[in-house]
Amino acid sequence: MIIVMKPNAKQESIKRIKEIIELKGLYAHISDGDQVTIIGVVGDKGKLMDQNLEIYEDVDKIVPVTESYKLANKKFHPEPTKVKVGNVTIGGDTFVIMSGPCAVESKEQLLTTAHAIKKAGAHILRGGAYKPRTSPYAFQGLEEEGLTYMKEAREETGLPIVCEVTSLDAIEVAVKYVDMLQIGARNMQNFYLLKEAGKTGLPVLLKRGLAATIDEWLNAAEYIVAEGNPNVVLCERGIRTFETATRNTLDISAVPVIKAKSHLPIIIDPSHATGVRDYVKPLARASVAVGADGLMIETHPDPSRAWSDGPQSLTFDEFEDLTYEIDPLITFMGKNL
Amino acid sequence: MIIVMKPNAKQESIKRIKEIIELKGLYAHISDGDQVTIIGVVGDKGKLMDQNLEIYEDVDKIVPVTESYKLANKKFHPEPTKVKVGNVTIGGDTFVIMSGPCAVESKEQLLTTAHAIKKAGAHILRGGAYKPRTSPYAFQGLEEEGLTYMKEAREETGLPIVCEVTSLDAIEVAVKYVDMLQIGARNMQNFYLLKEAGKTGLPVLLKRGLAATIDEWLNAAEYIVAEGNPNVVLCERGIRTFETATRNTLDISAVPVIKAKSHLPIIIDPSHATGVRDYVKPLARASVAVGADGLMIETHPDPSRAWSDGPQSLTFDEFEDLTYEIDPLITFMGKNL
Amino acid sequence: MIIVMKPNAKQESIKRIKEIIELKGLYAHISDGDQVTIIGVVGDKGKLMDQNLEIYEDVDKIVPVTESYKLANKKFHPEPTKVKVGNVTIGGDTFVIMSGPCAVESKEQLLTTAHAIKKAGAHILRGGAYKPRTSPYAFQGLEEEGLTYMKEAREETGLPIVCEVTSLDAIEVAVKYVDMLQIGARNMQNFYLLKEAGKTGLPVLLKRGLAATIDEWLNAAEYIVAEGNPNVVLCERGIRTFETATRNTLDISAVPVIKAKSHLPIIIDPSHATGVRDYVKPLARASVAVGADGLMIETHPDPSRAWSDGPQSLTFDEFEDLTYEIDPLITFMGKNL
Amino acid sequence: MIIVMKPNAKQESIKRIKEIIELKGLYAHISDGDQVTIIGVVGDKGKLMDQNLEIYEDVDKIVPVTESYKLANKKFHPEPTKVKVGNVTIGGDTFVIMSGPCAVESKEQLLTTAHAIKKAGAHILRGGAYKPRTSPYAFQGLEEEGLTYMKEAREETGLPIVCEVTSLDAIEVAVKYVDMLQIGARNMQNFYLLKEAGKTGLPVLLKRGLAATIDEWLNAAEYIVAEGNPNVVLCERGIRTFETATRNTLDISAVPVIKAKSHLPIIIDPSHATGVRDYVKPLARASVAVGADGLMIETHPDPSRAWSDGPQSLTFDEFEDLTYEIDPLITFMGKNL
Repeated sequence: MIIVMKPNAKQESIKRIKEIIELKGLYAHISDGDQVTIIGVVGDKGKLMDQNLEIYEDVDKIVPVTESYKLANKKFHPEPTKVKVGNVTIGGDTFVIMSGPCAVESKEQLLTTAHAIKKAGAHILRGGAYKPRTSPYAFQGLEEEGLTYMKEAREETGLPIVCEVTSLDAIEVAVKYVDMLQIGARNMQNFYLLKEAGKTGLPVLLKRGLAATIDEWLNAAEYIVAEGNPNVVLCERGIRTFETATRNTLDISAVPVIKAKSHLPIIIDPSHATGVRDYVKPLARASVAVGADGLMIETHPDPSRAWSDGPQSLTFDEFEDLTYEIDPLITFMGKNL
Repeated sequence: MIIVMKPNAKQESIKRIKEIIELKGLYAHISDGDQVTIIGVVGDKGKLMDQNLEIYEDVDKIVPVTESYKLANKKFHPEPTKVKVGNVTIGGDTFVIMSGPCAVESKEQLLTTAHAIKKAGAHILRGGAYKPRTSPYAFQGLEEEGLTYMKEAREETGLPIVCEVTSLDAIEVAVKYVDMLQIGARNMQNFYLLKEAGKTGLPVLLKRGLAATIDEWLNAAEYIVAEGNPNVVLCERGIRTFETATRNTLDISAVPVIKAKSHLPIIIDPSHATGVRDYVKPLARASVAVGADGLMIETHPDPSRAWSDGPQSLTFDEFEDLTYEIDPLITFMGKNL
Repeated sequence: MIIVMKPNAKQESIKRIKEIIELKGLYAHISDGDQVTIIGVVGDKGKLMDQNLEIYEDVDKIVPVTESYKLANKKFHPEPTKVKVGNVTIGGDTFVIMSGPCAVESKEQLLTTAHAIKKAGAHILRGGAYKPRTSPYAFQGLEEEGLTYMKEAREETGLPIVCEVTSLDAIEVAVKYVDMLQIGARNMQNFYLLKEAGKTGLPVLLKRGLAATIDEWLNAAEYIVAEGNPNVVLCERGIRTFETATRNTLDISAVPVIKAKSHLPIIIDPSHATGVRDYVKPLARASVAVGADGLMIETHPDPSRAWSDGPQSLTFDEFEDLTYEIDPLITFMGKNL
Repeated sequence: MIIVMKPNAKQESIKRIKEIIELKGLYAHISDGDQVTIIGVVGDKGKLMDQNLEIYEDVDKIVPVTESYKLANKKFHPEPTKVKVGNVTIGGDTFVIMSGPCAVESKEQLLTTAHAIKKAGAHILRGGAYKPRTSPYAFQGLEEEGLTYMKEAREETGLPIVCEVTSLDAIEVAVKYVDMLQIGARNMQNFYLLKEAGKTGLPVLLKRGLAATIDEWLNAAEYIVAEGNPNVVLCERGIRTFETATRNTLDISAVPVIKAKSHLPIIIDPSHATGVRDYVKPLARASVAVGADGLMIETHPDPSRAWSDGPQSLTFDEFEDLTYEIDPLITFMGKNL
C-alpha cells in the first residue's frame, strides 16, 4: 500500500501517518519527491483494516499495490485449475460446451433438447429451474419439478447437469440433483449465496455481474474458494454499457485478462451477451479463438415459443451447425472436445 | 405491443404474425407504411408471453408500449405513497434524514452516534449488521449482536431503525428488531430476497443496483409490492459509469424521473454515491433542491477508524453542520423535517 | 510517479529500472516491501516521457501521483478564476444564466427569444449557428447568417452572446460576432479546435465530452489555457451511461469535484443532460444548490416546432417560472444574479 | 415513425396529432388499443422534421422504425462494399493487416518498421503524424515531416499508407502523401472533418468513438458517403466502460452487428482496445474468427522507448509471431491475405 501525500503536506501530517503505521507493527518507508511525499507501507496491510488513512490531513490518495483476492490469484497459484463436473474436465487443454434451454419448461422439452445437444457434441446440459426475472409477472421456473427432469435427462444421456440457484432453499434442493451449481449475474455479489454455494463442495459456475469489474469478479470467486471449494469456473456473459444494439456487451478481453490474473477456467456465454440468435455463432468462433475454456449456448426445440430468452436461443440445427463449425478451431487452439 | 416488420416483408410473413396474435384472442391492427408494415397488438399482451415474435421471419423488432410494473406505476396509482417507519412518515410533504454508521462496530460506537445524530436533527437511525463486502477478508458485520445494539439505540433515542438484510436468515432475525428493512444495491435483483422482504410487511428501503435502469428498479419494487406490501422507499445511491473521480455517479435525474413514473417515495444517499466526505454536503443540498423525499448520510464518531466506508463518513460536527445548512432549503421546498 | 514491481521481481530487473531513471538525471527511491518492491521517481517526470517503464521485465504497473494539467489545476492556482463575457462575470460569487434556442432558425425566432429571456432574468444569449448533428440529413445551422442575427439580438437587448464553433472556418467567422466561443461535447477532444479557440483570446465555454473523465476534461481546458487564454468556463451537460430514461446522465458530482481540483468556473446544462422538458426545472434547482456558477437552459418560442432539441426546450413562460423559482436559492447560496 | 399516446389520452389530443401529420401530406394510421392508442405515420417522415410531436399533450413517446442512415445501410445496398487502398482491397473475401507505429518519430524508426511489417505479412503501413493527445504537453506528432517519411516508406516497400487527420489543414497536406485517411475515435463526430474527408474521394478509415453507439457510427459514415465517397472502412477500437483492467472494452459483437446492418467493411484494432501488449494476440485471433475484414496492430522497433502508446505496441518478433499464428485462421474463415 502506498500513501500519496498532498503537495506541500506539513511535516507533522507526514509524521502522524508514519506513527499510525508503526503503531500497527508495520514499517513506513518515506520517499520525498519534488512535489509530493509518498509513504510505502511494508508488512501485512490487513493490520491497517481499521484505519482510513485517506481522510487524515494532507493525504491525497491511497494506492493499493496487491490484489485483495489470494486463493484465486495466479501469483500464488500459477498452475491452471481443472474442474471436474461429472466425467467432464473444465480447464487445461479441454474445450467444454454447455447447452440447453434458458428455462426448463416441461419434461418433453428438456429431454428432446438433451438428446439433441448430445448428438451435436455438447458435454454438459444446462437448464434453469429457478429463474431470476426482471418482472414478477414473468415465468419464474418449475423449481424442484424442473430439477427432476434435469436428473432424468442426465440418466438418459449421461450428460452432467448445471442449474442456477438463487437462494439457500434452492441450493438445499439442487444439491440432491445437479453436478454443478450456477450463480447468476444478478447474484454475483450475493455474498451469502456465494458462501453457501462454496460450502456444498460442488463445482460452481460463477457468472460475471452486469456491472462487475474483473477484480470484483475474482473477489466473488474468492468467497467460494475461501470456503474450501476450489472448483470454480468463471463465465463471461456480457457487461452493461451504453450500446443497445446488443442486449449486453461481450467483454471478450476478459479471457486474456483472467488468464493473466487467475488460474481459474473461464467460459463464454454468447447467448446472454448478445441476446440475438444471429450473433451467437460468430461470437462462439471468437470465444474459441481468444482462448476460452468453453462455451455456454442456449438451445430450444422451438425458440419462437420459449418461455424465456427465446430470441437468443438456437434451434437444434443451428446448434449442430455451430459445433460443426467450431470443431476445427478447437483443434487449431490445441484443445480437444 | 407493436411489431415492426422488415422492409419488403413478405405478405405471408405478415399474415403469419397476424394469425398468431388472433389465435391468442387478441386483435392485430396492421398499418402499411411506405417502407415498413407495423402491427399493433390490441388486448392483454400477457397472452403472448410464450411467443417470441421477434424471431419469426421478416420481423424487425418488437416495441413495448406499456411498462411491465403495474402496482408501482403512477399511471395506475397517481397519489404519492406515504410510508410509515415507526412514527416517521416518508413521502408527501416530509423530508426525512436517516443517518448512522456504515457498520455497527460496538455498542458504544452506535449509541454515541444515535444520540449525536438525533441531536443534529436526524429522524431514523441506520446501521449495518450484515455487511456485503467485495472481499471475503473484510469485516462482515456483527449480525444479531449488532441488531441488539440498534434496538437499544432506538430505546434510548426513540429513533426508528433501518438495517440491511442480505439473506432469508438475516430477515428472520431482523424482523424481531428493526422498523425498516434495507435491500442493498448488490441485492436489488435478488428476487428471492425481495419476495421475502415483501412478505414481512415491514417497510422496505430499496437501493438502486449499480447497473440497474430505472425501469428495472421499479420492477424490483414491484416484486415487493406484489407480495401485498406497498411500503417501499427507493434510494438512489449512484450508478456505475466510466468516471473514477467519485466512487459511483449520482444519478440525480432519477428523482424527477421516479416522480414522473411512480408514486413511491425516493431518497438519496450521497455518501455511497461519491465515496468522498467533502462531496457529501453539496450533494445533500442538491438532493433537497431536486425534490427528493429524504437523505441517507453516513456518520461515525471517528471516521478515520471506521471499519467500513470511513472515507465517506461525516463526523458529528460535519453532520450537524449539514443538517443546519439544509434546514432552510427543506422549508423552501415546502417540506418539513 | 511510482513504479510497482511484480512479486518476486528479479534484483536485476529492479536495478535496470533504477538505472534508466538515474540516466535521465532523476532519483529512484526504492522501497522493499514484504511482497513487492516499489520505486518512487523523484524529479521532473517529463524527462521520462520517452520511456515506457510498464513494459520492462518484472514491472507490474505505473502509478502517476500528479495530474498532467497544471494551469487548470487548483493546486498551483488556488484562487477561483473569474471570466468576463461582455459585462457579465462568471465565477466567484455570481450566478449566471445563459439561455436561448438550440439552433438559430430565423431572425424573428431569435429576437423574440432574446427579449423574452432578458425579461425573465437571463444574462447571456446562446444560439447555435453551426450545429453538429448525428445525421447528415438533419438541419445543420444557418452559419454566418445565424451569427448576424445573434449580433442583432445583442444590439437590441445588451445581452452578450455565445455560439458553438465546430471548425477553424467557423472560428474565423465567429470572432467577428460573438462574446464567447462554445466548444461542444463532441469536439471536447478535438485538440486542434481547442488550440485555435485558445488563440482567439475570447472566453471559451467548454462542454464536457459524452465519455470524458473529469481528468480528461481538465486536460482539454489545459489546451486552451496553454495558448495564453485563461478564460475558460466548464459546462457539465451529462455523460453517457446505460440509463435510457434520460438522454444522458447529469453528473452533478462534477461540480464539487471540479471545485476541489480546479479554479475554473463550472455551469450546468440540464436541457442536454436530460433531453426532457419536465426534468429541467428540478435539475436547475439542484444545480444552484450544489454550488454551480451558472446554468445553460434551452428556450424556444414554440418548442413543438423547434428544428433541433425541441423536446428539451422550455417555453418563455416555463423559463420565467424557472428563473423566478431559483432566484431565492441563488441568494441562499450567497450568490447574486 | 410510431406515436404512442398516453393511457386515457383525450380524443382531441389524438385528433390534433392526426391533423399535424395530415397537414404535412402524410397519412396517420390510428390503432386504438385497450390501454393506449398508437398512431403510425405513413410517408416520408423527413416532412415532420420541424415538428416535435413528443411534446404535444397526451403523447407518451415517439418510436422510430427506420434508421436515419441510408447510403451506409445494408437494407438499401445488400452487397458488401470493397474499398481499394492502393493495390489492396478491403472487404469481401480478403483479410487485411495494417501495422506500424502509433506515432512517426523519425525516418529511421519508420523505415525499419515498414520493412519489418512487410516481411511479416502486413499489407498497409499506418503511422501517426498528427497525434491527438489527452495532455497538451505530450508529443503532438511530426506533422508534414512525418508524412514525407511515410511516403518514403511506401516507395521503399510498396505498402499503401494510412494516416490520421485531425483538421482541414492536416487533410490538405495529407492528400499529397497518403493512400487512405484515418478519422480517429475522438473526431468520430467532428462532422466538419467527416465532410472534408469525404470530399477528398480518398478511402477513409473511420474509427468508432469511445462512447458512440453503432447507430451513431453508421451515421458518421453516412456523412462521408453522402459527399459522394463510398470508400469507408469502419474500425472498432474499444468503447469506454466501467472496466479498468483494459484501456477500453473491445466490443467484438460490433462485427456481426455491422455485418447485419451495413455493407461497409469493418476491421479491429486490438492495440488501442486493450492498451496491453500481452492481450493483442488473443484478440487478433478472435478478430479473425468473428469475421472481421482486417486488423490494425501497433508495432515499434523498441516499444519501451515509443513516444506514444508503447505499452500496447508489439516488437517485430511479436508481430511476426502474430501474423504467423493467424494465417491458418484466415484461411479457415475462407479469406485470403
